[in-house]
Amino acid sequence: MKILLIGGVGTLGTAVGSALTEREHEVITVGRATGDLRFDISDPEQTAALYEQAGQVDAVVSTAGDVPYKPVVELSAEDYESAFRGKVRSQIELVRQGTRRVAERGSFTLITGVLSRDPIPTSSAASMANGAVEAFVLAAAKEIAPQRVNAVSPTVFTESLEKYGSFFPGIPPVDLAEVAQAYVRSVEGADTGRIYTLS
Amino acid sequence: MKILLIGGVGTLGTAVGSALTEREHEVITVGRATGDLRFDISDPEQTAALYEQAGQVDAVVSTAGDVPYKPVVELSAEDYESAFRGKVRSQIELVRQGTRRVAERGSFTLITGVLSRDPIPTSSAASMANGAVEAFVLAAAKEIAPQRVNAVSPTVFTESLEKYGSFFPGIPPVDLAEVAQAYVRSVEGADTGRIYTLS
Repeated sequence: MKILLIGGVGTLGTAVGSALTEREHEVITVGRATGDLRFDISDPEQTAALYEQAGQVDAVVSTAGDVPYKPVVELSAEDYESAFRGKVRSQIELVRQGTRRVAERGSFTLITGVLSRDPIPTSSAASMANGAVEAFVLAAAKEIAPQRVNAVSPTVFTESLEKYGSFFPGIPPVDLAEVAQAYVRSVEGADTGRIYTLS
Repeated sequence: MKILLIGGVGTLGTAVGSALTEREHEVITVGRATGDLRFDISDPEQTAALYEQAGQVDAVVSTAGDVPYKPVVELSAEDYESAFRGKVRSQIELVRQGTRRVAERGSFTLITGVLSRDPIPTSSAASMANGAVEAFVLAAAKEIAPQRVNAVSPTVFTESLEKYGSFFPGIPPVDLAEVAQAYVRSVEGADTGRIYTLS
């Protein structure tokens, strides 16, 4: 399959790219400043331009989202808006605009994360964004069939424990390779409206 | 208790207002064009002005949210943004700005709805908004204690079946009086981070 991989150079994106390439898919990476195609999908017009340039694809997988982390009383209205644009609207637009660009039985795989169900202090904007995307996936799946849409919702990565482990005390991490397999499952399988929780 | 009731003249707001008044609370209704105080909480600055005018309160209960309903491929980026501002950011700002205005053990009770877990066609923006608010509630509850925050998430109201029943085929409705009691429970009880699902 020809697959658009959003965020292909991040920690998760690299792992997902490797897993998809191993399965002999053609992976086209997309990023703001790096990747085969350079677009910032927090801007709906750039998402349109991305699809224009990429042409027909079989699957879109998203591994990137930007949200601010601060105590709830320090987050501003603009911070929540930034979380919405950076992780919610960006991924919704991939689906909404992508239905005309993706194969008839193609799929979208979005990224959310454990914080929608197990929040930590400073995560209220991230939690909000993950909850929004997960509910959107359930709703959109029913409407876009036979195209499919799922989300991968991992806890902290084993490989990121040194950097982020202190935010997840006592919470078992998940290996990146396992998270990448959830993307493979979403892309190659027949699931839709599914949230793959890895935690 | 002195309670701010957002959307006090809507179908749900009227029922919640009655239930809270019966419990001998002092209810101050807030609406865009009607109510004791007139503010549009989709604008964070008006939320600030609302709290400035209302002074110290014991609880804030929200019964209102505006979201567009359209097929997912017809919804625009602006429609999703409108759902975010009309139901997500509006209610997040009630909490975020309200922590300085609500009593030390006061509470916030927000409105979501069944569409985050059981979407219907045309509900993807509404589903997104409900999922966002519910995840925010889980996250914010941990940070604002001993203040509390919960959400009420009802299915279609028995009293609204004539108008909206065709969108919820075979789905049992819930009486407004029962939904109103979930607000009473949230306000007078000790729960926090709780989603009261009525479906």
